[in-house]
Amino acid sequence: MTGRISIIGLGPGNILQLTPQATQVLAQVTDLVGYGPYVQRVEAPASVIRHSSDNREELARARHALEMAQAGRHVGVVSGGDAGVFGMASAVFEAVQSGPPEWRRLDIEVIPGVSAVLAAAARLGAPLGGDFCVISLSDNLKPWPLVLRRLQLAAQAEFVIALYNPRSKARPWQLAEALKYVQQYAPLKAPVAFARAIGRPDEAVRLSTLAEANAEWADMSTLVLIGCAASHLIERPNAQPWFYTSRKVEAV
Amino acid sequence: MTGRISIIGLGPGNILQLTPQATQVLAQVTDLVGYGPYVQRVEAPASVIRHSSDNREELARARHALEMAQAGRHVGVVSGGDAGVFGMASAVFEAVQSGPPEWRRLDIEVIPGVSAVLAAAARLGAPLGGDFCVISLSDNLKPWPLVLRRLQLAAQAEFVIALYNPRSKARPWQLAEALKYVQQYAPLKAPVAFARAIGRPDEAVRLSTLAEANAEWADMSTLVLIGCAASHLIERPNAQPWFYTSRKVEAV
Repeated sequence: MTGRISIIGLGPGNILQLTPQATQVLAQVTDLVGYGPYVQRVEAPASVIRHSSDNREELARARHALEMAQAGRHVGVVSGGDAGVFGMASAVFEAVQSGPPEWRRLDIEVIPGVSAVLAAAARLGAPLGGDFCVISLSDNLKPWPLVLRRLQLAAQAEFVIALYNPRSKARPWQLAEALKYVQQYAPLKAPVAFARAIGRPDEAVRLSTLAEANAEWADMSTLVLIGCAASHLIERPNAQPWFYTSRKVEAV
Repeated sequence: MTGRISIIGLGPGNILQLTPQATQVLAQVTDLVGYGPYVQRVEAPASVIRHSSDNREELARARHALEMAQAGRHVGVVSGGDAGVFGMASAVFEAVQSGPPEWRRLDIEVIPGVSAVLAAAARLGAPLGGDFCVISLSDNLKPWPLVLRRLQLAAQAEFVIALYNPRSKARPWQLAEALKYVQQYAPLKAPVAFARAIGRPDEAVRLSTLAEANAEWADMSTLVLIGCAASHLIERPNAQPWFYTSRKVEAV
């Protein structure tokens, strides 16, 4: 019997943003593996075994999934948003690369999902209308000076910058330093959005500018979007402004 | 009567990757607006009026949608993938900003979708496992020197680089120049993927390295993914290698 791994993006959290492909595959798995809140989110028959683990246990969790697949199970490895964007997909392939050769024979598929950055952008207007980049502000897996260097180069490239993992209890200071750093390289009047838990009942949006953005407005469920020179806020009567980035950049 | 605009991402093309939210909204619209192939792709009741237009007509198309919404229609503006990523969302808000004040009172919503880059990444493994950027190689709306500058800075930032619109009949030379340019700043052995029409019946994948990638392998339906120093190909028996990027970057 040959096992299988399906790495599944669950989308932002609203069931209407979970793809039918993900729903179909979730109905076939024998086991679910992932960070607790994501595993709990899945509706599955009672026969499905749920293996929840803590955050930051990605590699151990991936190896566990691969061992179960090798034993013939069909393991669903779940992430919020899209599993390929700071989710479990990379951890699974990292485990394969460093694991026994048999794991390379396993049937591993990745089912894409609506990522947090796409959901946040849709909620705000069209902030990703031009070229953009996506950076995790966590320095658990890369040195902080590299994060700063990437922020500088991204701002110099006039990318819109989407920041994942901007702030947590264990990493309270990075976002304030990052914002201050980007202020040196991007326009101070560029719009900045704090998009929290988009697609979930407790969603919240706060708009500001790079000059005035306050890191205290973010928590671990927030995505921060920093605009560029081509980004605009469109004021509206009795409603939050729309945040969009022009597709067009004039020659200077 | 107040009109409404729903800007909808149709996903990569496979109906199983269209979100239930998009399906629900598509069932409510009175009119569909978009580039011909996307408008034709939508299953809709006969009463829905389809307004197809050519590529590169985004702004005129957006204004037409806004005029119809102002006249009380519920207009679905459709894009492939996610409408916020080189799709129609930015054009609609650009039209709002430069249009009559009444347009700011319209109910405009954006329904996110699975973008082409997420679908391509899922098909390949986990190439977006670290920080990444997304660049349109088209110089219809921005100067070519800016595209090259962004490529340079992105490579120096060690981002994985996803290229939309790499090549068309009207723009046959940009990709070859871009690849040659990036070779100066990114590792020559970095994996490069040409992912064509992912999620559609004619999908095709070609893997190479930055040193050997050939622009002739791309057409207007191709997404090109250029890896970084943290990207790897995992060889497999009797199957295409997996392309993934490590989440971890060591301090140098």
